[in-house]
Amino acid sequence: MSRSASRVDTKKVNSELITLTYGALVAQMVKDIDNVDDVNKQLERLGYNMGIRLIEDFLSKTHASRCLDLKDTADKVQTAFRMYLGVQPNVANWSPAGDEFSFIIDSNPLTELVELPEEMKNLKYCNLICGALRGALEMVHLDIQSWIVQDQLKGDTNTEIRVKFIRRLEDAIPAGED
Amino acid sequence: MSRSASRVDTKKVNSELITLTYGALVAQMVKDIDNVDDVNKQLERLGYNMGIRLIEDFLSKTHASRCLDLKDTADKVQTAFRMYLGVQPNVANWSPAGDEFSFIIDSNPLTELVELPEEMKNLKYCNLICGALRGALEMVHLDIQSWIVQDQLKGDTNTEIRVKFIRRLEDAIPAGED
Repeated sequence: MSRSASRVDTKKVNSELITLTYGALVAQMVKDIDNVDDVNKQLERLGYNMGIRLIEDFLSKTHASRCLDLKDTADKVQTAFRMYLGVQPNVANWSPAGDEFSFIIDSNPLTELVELPEEMKNLKYCNLICGALRGALEMVHLDIQSWIVQDQLKGDTNTEIRVKFIRRLEDAIPAGED
Repeated sequence: MSRSASRVDTKKVNSELITLTYGALVAQMVKDIDNVDDVNKQLERLGYNMGIRLIEDFLSKTHASRCLDLKDTADKVQTAFRMYLGVQPNVANWSPAGDEFSFIIDSNPLTELVELPEEMKNLKYCNLICGALRGALEMVHLDIQSWIVQDQLKGDTNTEIRVKFIRRLEDAIPAGED
C-alpha cells in the first residue's frame, strides 16, 4: 500500500515555507522559554498534538489497514514521511529483538539552512518529529518512545530518529462500563 | 513567464503541515504577547523576514525579469503564491489610479480548519502574508503597503489582501561614496 499511498493527491506547499515557519516557531519558543530542556519538551508535545491530527488525515487518504507488525508500521510511517515532509527516510538499525528501529533522513526540510548557535547545542530542534510519531502511533494503539540519535544540526551526516515499541494499547473502556 | 515558473521543480511538503505549524506559531505568540495588536505587528514583521528570503529563492528559480509595471508585479506575485502556498489568488479590485489592487484567495492553507475564538477577533491571523509581500517587494525596490481587507476567519467568503504601491526605491548608495 505504500506505493499507491504516495500517489494520493494532497495539497502541497513549498518546503522552504515550512523551513521558515518552523524556524520562526522554534525561535519564538527559545525566546519565551528560558530552559532548553523545556523547549525540547514543548516541541515534542507540539509534535504529539500534530501527530494525532495527521494520522486521521493519513488514514482517510491511504485507507491503510491495521499494522501487522512493527516492520509494517515502519513502512507505513515511511510513507507518511513522504506524504507530509516530502522526504523518504530509510528504515534501518533494527534491534535484535525487533522492537526498535531508526528512520534515517538525509535531507530534512525542517533543518535546511538552519544553524544552531553554540549556546543552543542542547536544543533538540527536530523533537517535533519524535512527538508526531508518538502521537500518531498512539492513535493506532501503539505506545512507542522516540528520540533523536543523530542530528545533522550537530554535525552528523544524517538525522537518525529512533523508535522503540513499548506496548500495544488496548481500547479504553469508558469508566462505569463493563 | 508565470506559466513556465509554475512548472519549476521545487520541494513540496503537505499543506496540512504548514496549517498546523503556523497555527502553533500564532498560538505561541498569542500566549506570550499580551496585546493582540502587538501579535499582529509581530506576524507582519515575521512575514517581512520570510519575504526577503523567499524572493531570492523565487528569483533564482524563475529567472524573473524586472517588473514592467504594477500589473506585471501582481502577475509575478500571483505565481509566487502558487509556488509557495500552492494557491492561485485572483488579482482584482484595481484602484482607478492603478496603484492599488487585491489578491483574492478562496482557499488558504494558513487558515484551513482554523477558528478564531471570540476574544481574538482583532487578530490578523494572515498578517504574515502582508509582511511577506512587503519584504519580498522591497527587495526588488518596490515600497508597498499591504493589509487584510476581507478575512475568511471573520466570516468573509474570501480572504482579500490589499496591496498599495507607495514608491519605487532607488538603489541605496553606501555612505561616503558618490
